[in-house]
Amino acid sequence: MTASLLRHPRFVSLEGGEGAGKTTAINALRDALRARGNDVVLTREPGGTPLAERIRALVLKPDAEIAAEPLSAEAELLLVFAARAQHVRQVIQPALRRGAYVISDRFTDSSYAYQGGGRGLDPAWIADLERRAVGLLPGLTLLLDVDVAVGRARANGRDMWPDRIESEQDDFFQRVRAVFRQRVGEDPGRFRLIDASQDQAGVATAVVAAVDAWLAQES
Amino acid sequence: MTASLLRHPRFVSLEGGEGAGKTTAINALRDALRARGNDVVLTREPGGTPLAERIRALVLKPDAEIAAEPLSAEAELLLVFAARAQHVRQVIQPALRRGAYVISDRFTDSSYAYQGGGRGLDPAWIADLERRAVGLLPGLTLLLDVDVAVGRARANGRDMWPDRIESEQDDFFQRVRAVFRQRVGEDPGRFRLIDASQDQAGVATAVVAAVDAWLAQES
Repeated sequence: MTASLLRHPRFVSLEGGEGAGKTTAINALRDALRARGNDVVLTREPGGTPLAERIRALVLKPDAEIAAEPLSAEAELLLVFAARAQHVRQVIQPALRRGAYVISDRFTDSSYAYQGGGRGLDPAWIADLERRAVGLLPGLTLLLDVDVAVGRARANGRDMWPDRIESEQDDFFQRVRAVFRQRVGEDPGRFRLIDASQDQAGVATAVVAAVDAWLAQES
Repeated sequence: MTASLLRHPRFVSLEGGEGAGKTTAINALRDALRARGNDVVLTREPGGTPLAERIRALVLKPDAEIAAEPLSAEAELLLVFAARAQHVRQVIQPALRRGAYVISDRFTDSSYAYQGGGRGLDPAWIADLERRAVGLLPGLTLLLDVDVAVGRARANGRDMWPDRIESEQDDFFQRVRAVFRQRVGEDPGRFRLIDASQDQAGVATAVVAAVDAWLAQES
């Protein structure tokens, strides 16, 4: 019962650390794909379905009843992949099947970066969960890469109530960034590295240009 | 980073299908161990910590907001193991470390039976999750075994509102029972098979006798 991992050409993920400008870039990308006449579904992780959003809350925004219970790295990884299994089956695959583009704010690469790099869990375990519970790779992944201190300063200016992961220290985010960059090197056909030290408009322009080039190459 | 699986002599699990008489047996076992002067912690799965009980509710008793979303077998497995990772770290290991006995109403064998046998997921995946996220085996597991039709008739008399798994059909529970029985054969040193076709008092007496014999053998 070996599970497989399929790359879908209309599935695009955006990845990056805190304060990289993902939201602005995703909205610009959605508008650009729609302007070209495409059906576009925008989604996010962890989350994307009612159940997956409930799991997201357990991981990122635990309420008073559970906030005092330390969440083990192992449970965090399994919760994120449970949410992803739902997200793929309920949202992403149905949209791809009807011919839509799907843009996801984060996908499995974030687990390699946050639970692997950040929390120190074995990447072989993450790869096994990816094959068994997800089975799907984006055709294109845009990594919005920015120096950790710069991204954190931006995120701190924005978030009144940082979530559980945003509350981690700089060395955690250095490890996250290192894994993201390493993954670009390991799969250059899927990734585009975007310099996210630019302002938000610049990042959005670079993202749309990267997708245009990718679409031209695919068609 | 290979994870190990340690068997603990003061950790006892009770397993079995619906209507096997687990609750009465567990209470009798707790009383017998306490009467011998032991510190005893009673716990259950899925659940056992505040967060794990929240995960249990997502799996077994989804509320109106998420009840319409089909839960994939893969997500069910990952949620159950996320809860178990918390249960082991927050409850079971601390109690064992201070010298207590721990009696758990269900443990990892239930995942082999329900998510493996019942849902058809790969037992090699379950074994990998057991090593990586749990790392702990009971020293003694009592399987309360009863014919599916008999157990179901008892459970139906009790449950006004059967949960998501109790609502499965008989062939599901036949597969669950088959895997439980197969596991007894594979690890006879850990398992004791209890005939749960007896009445509840008979089951409880057989459970206490099995534990007494096991304690005498261990000491």
